[in-house]
Amino acid sequence: MRLTELAERLGADLVHPEATASTDVDVTAVRPIQHAGPGEVTFLTSAEYAKYLAASRAAAVIVQRPLAGAAIPQLVHPNPYWAFARTTQLFAPPADHTPGVHDGAFVSETATLGADVTIHAGAVVDRGAELGARVVLYPGAYVGRDVRIGDDSIVHANAVVQEGVTIGARVLLNPGCVIGGEGFGFAPGPDGLAKIVQAGGVRIGDDVEVGANTTIDRGAMDDTVIGDGTKIDSQVQIGHNVVIGRHSLVCGMSGLAGSSKIGNGVMIGGHSAVTNHCEVADGVQLAGMSGITKSVSQPGRYAGLPAAEVGEWRRERVRIRRLPELEARVRELEARLDALGRD
Amino acid sequence: MRLTELAERLGADLVHPEATASTDVDVTAVRPIQHAGPGEVTFLTSAEYAKYLAASRAAAVIVQRPLAGAAIPQLVHPNPYWAFARTTQLFAPPADHTPGVHDGAFVSETATLGADVTIHAGAVVDRGAELGARVVLYPGAYVGRDVRIGDDSIVHANAVVQEGVTIGARVLLNPGCVIGGEGFGFAPGPDGLAKIVQAGGVRIGDDVEVGANTTIDRGAMDDTVIGDGTKIDSQVQIGHNVVIGRHSLVCGMSGLAGSSKIGNGVMIGGHSAVTNHCEVADGVQLAGMSGITKSVSQPGRYAGLPAAEVGEWRRERVRIRRLPELEARVRELEARLDALGRD
Amino acid sequence: MRLTELAERLGADLVHPEATASTDVDVTAVRPIQHAGPGEVTFLTSAEYAKYLAASRAAAVIVQRPLAGAAIPQLVHPNPYWAFARTTQLFAPPADHTPGVHDGAFVSETATLGADVTIHAGAVVDRGAELGARVVLYPGAYVGRDVRIGDDSIVHANAVVQEGVTIGARVLLNPGCVIGGEGFGFAPGPDGLAKIVQAGGVRIGDDVEVGANTTIDRGAMDDTVIGDGTKIDSQVQIGHNVVIGRHSLVCGMSGLAGSSKIGNGVMIGGHSAVTNHCEVADGVQLAGMSGITKSVSQPGRYAGLPAAEVGEWRRERVRIRRLPELEARVRELEARLDALGRD
Repeated sequence: MRLTELAERLGADLVHPEATASTDVDVTAVRPIQHAGPGEVTFLTSAEYAKYLAASRAAAVIVQRPLAGAAIPQLVHPNPYWAFARTTQLFAPPADHTPGVHDGAFVSETATLGADVTIHAGAVVDRGAELGARVVLYPGAYVGRDVRIGDDSIVHANAVVQEGVTIGARVLLNPGCVIGGEGFGFAPGPDGLAKIVQAGGVRIGDDVEVGANTTIDRGAMDDTVIGDGTKIDSQVQIGHNVVIGRHSLVCGMSGLAGSSKIGNGVMIGGHSAVTNHCEVADGVQLAGMSGITKSVSQPGRYAGLPAAEVGEWRRERVRIRRLPELEARVRELEARLDALGRD
Repeated sequence: MRLTELAERLGADLVHPEATASTDVDVTAVRPIQHAGPGEVTFLTSAEYAKYLAASRAAAVIVQRPLAGAAIPQLVHPNPYWAFARTTQLFAPPADHTPGVHDGAFVSETATLGADVTIHAGAVVDRGAELGARVVLYPGAYVGRDVRIGDDSIVHANAVVQEGVTIGARVLLNPGCVIGGEGFGFAPGPDGLAKIVQAGGVRIGDDVEVGANTTIDRGAMDDTVIGDGTKIDSQVQIGHNVVIGRHSLVCGMSGLAGSSKIGNGVMIGGHSAVTNHCEVADGVQLAGMSGITKSVSQPGRYAGLPAAEVGEWRRERVRIRRLPELEARVRELEARLDALGRD
Repeated sequence: MRLTELAERLGADLVHPEATASTDVDVTAVRPIQHAGPGEVTFLTSAEYAKYLAASRAAAVIVQRPLAGAAIPQLVHPNPYWAFARTTQLFAPPADHTPGVHDGAFVSETATLGADVTIHAGAVVDRGAELGARVVLYPGAYVGRDVRIGDDSIVHANAVVQEGVTIGARVLLNPGCVIGGEGFGFAPGPDGLAKIVQAGGVRIGDDVEVGANTTIDRGAMDDTVIGDGTKIDSQVQIGHNVVIGRHSLVCGMSGLAGSSKIGNGVMIGGHSAVTNHCEVADGVQLAGMSGITKSVSQPGRYAGLPAAEVGEWRRERVRIRRLPELEARVRELEARLDALGRD
């Protein structure tokens, strides 16, 4: 791809410093600024990396604002991180699937397969399941009874989709994830813990990604729901009857407890949690290792356990760190009063 | 099922308000109070949901105490949450297994299969393993060498039971869980980290449930043990030589470190942890996102990190939140003393 | 093995108390001190267990210093924990693999298999993959396209190694782990979250162990790297482009966020986390349930969230616990000043 074409596809302004004579070059890849060489595009989304720019031999750099005095062609875009993401997509190798059902796959006679599906050895499609067009099932993937998977979705190796789950189009299920495992509900009684039968399902929208070994439990009576475009990282646990909106992000090792309700455009940091039955408003950003323990109705950034607005959380941390000063002031007061008493 | 029969099977009192003429109706399902319609039973276990009662068209509601003035038949039971759980069981669809070994399953000739087992395509049973009657293995389930699994247990898709593990009757292993992975023990030495060979096993009692992608490591020298009736949620990690008693609950994403010893009727909240070698007494309830760092000998509720009795933990939280007031009081004292000095 | 031979192989001094006449005995196993019987070796690495010594019928005990007055033969070694680890290795049962490819395994014609590999039923080796000598693949293991695995490595049941990953020699992958799942990178844009294509790989060194259901994500542009001899526990999540050095330990349920850089000989406690882009120096030890939120350049012990040097963290905990005393002192000061004012 020519650099000018890339600029056009990104909707970026191509700024050539006078120092470079080339009007256009071929670009073949996108690489971090420390490593990008000739013919490769790089990006600058954090000031921390600007120091590498002078020595860079990259073909161009994606930036938010034109860099005065830089010797390198610049792709100027108001959202450089997004422009970088789009560039990785433009340079991605094409998918390499050969449609067909491998002899070592097991597909029920009552399953329905869309056009050009690819089913690898060791994958299993159970009774009544429906796969859309161009769906890919990798080895060991299990698609349970009456599951529906939309067009162009990919189920990676050893991922499990349990009975009755519905999955949208262009969904990516990473290896080992489990969609529709039993929700966790028990009531203490005379003979120990009585199981609350988990009879709900899971509905996953379009363009969702689910990380490796992530688990999304089926609902107890109603469904667990993941909205369109939401992305879930590795080893996340989503409890029964959780509802997540659209275009939200849940980072690795976080847990959303049963019946919590997460809005649109929410970002949950890694290793965090939301308590059961909490509601989290659209646009909330929760820091890593934090825990929401009661509903949050205002967008904004939150941190800590229990999670507080991030400024409040920082001030609390500062107060704790400064306890020795407070103790010293109390000691000083005591000494002054003692001295007064001795006068 | 007639409503009167349900009342009888639950051991509940059926209280008909005068407003309703029906002496009995058919009931077919249990549903949350917002959604339950005619012919469906609902339940009221939290005051928060009482507001939905007036408009409910449900056939009956499970409650702890008769509701004055309610227009809806009531199933009065001293433990309504348990009665609800039992009701979900009574309305659960019957299991739908067709006994037999699928052609695409691999069962060692030296394995022993109980009556009416169901082994799906892609499941593997290794040498010397013994499956009890009516055991079900879903696709991709692996039962290692010399494993024993009791009657009526279910091993879901891609769950793994490693060599020598013993599993009781009526156990449910959710997809992707791993029973008997290597414990984690290494000793620093001259050539790096020397492995402590993990030669113990895992013993799981009757009526245990293990969540999706949960891991229970094998013991180092002795066994890791899970007692009868204990329920473990998704993505829990149980270290080598942990011993858990009977009827305990471990919620999602919690970790029990090596050689910790958990009593009977313990409840571990989500995303929590118990440090290695700690003992946790019968009846302890640990809040979510908390950590037990030394043995707890008294039943009760605990929270925080390090975990403290829950009232103590709350008071500490209040003190931290009120630090600005304490600082203000110190400032005020300083001002008063300064003023005194100026007199 | 004779006790004298064991002493020699460990490089330990064999100290016979005068009370015992036997010059040498056969030893067949190593067991905890509470359970070790005749013919078994035990060990004493914690003073807590010394109380069991008097009643022990073990053949010998591994200790750091000779025990005055003990009636039991002693294997004295300056690093008794390491000597214990070595002993478990010397008594480990020999591996029991019958080389060959099971009829129920699926191996691509373009894959390359080393000498004496063992591939069990249901394992899948994809196009262009290369397995070293004596590699073992258990049922359901998936080795993706162009993966390379070194000699003597073991891939347990349902573990997944995605396309292009490189794995060294003598590596142990526990069941259900996923090496090379997609990294988690998305940029908010006009149509929701734009995917940053994850085109890097994973390189795992020699003698690495990876726990059950642990996930190691592939890099975005460069590789995720795990150094020789590093051991990773169950259910750990390692983000894209993380680099870990040699002989480090990562305990269960910990998460290393994207692009974090962990040194050599680092120990990360359970349920802990390192924020993205943080660097952690050689020899850092992080306590459990702690979080490193900015780079740590000095070796030593750290704890808390945000992690601080462990002594500092303890002092802070003490200050918080003693807030009631500080409040009482302020109250006392107020009373004294009030009394002064009344004079």
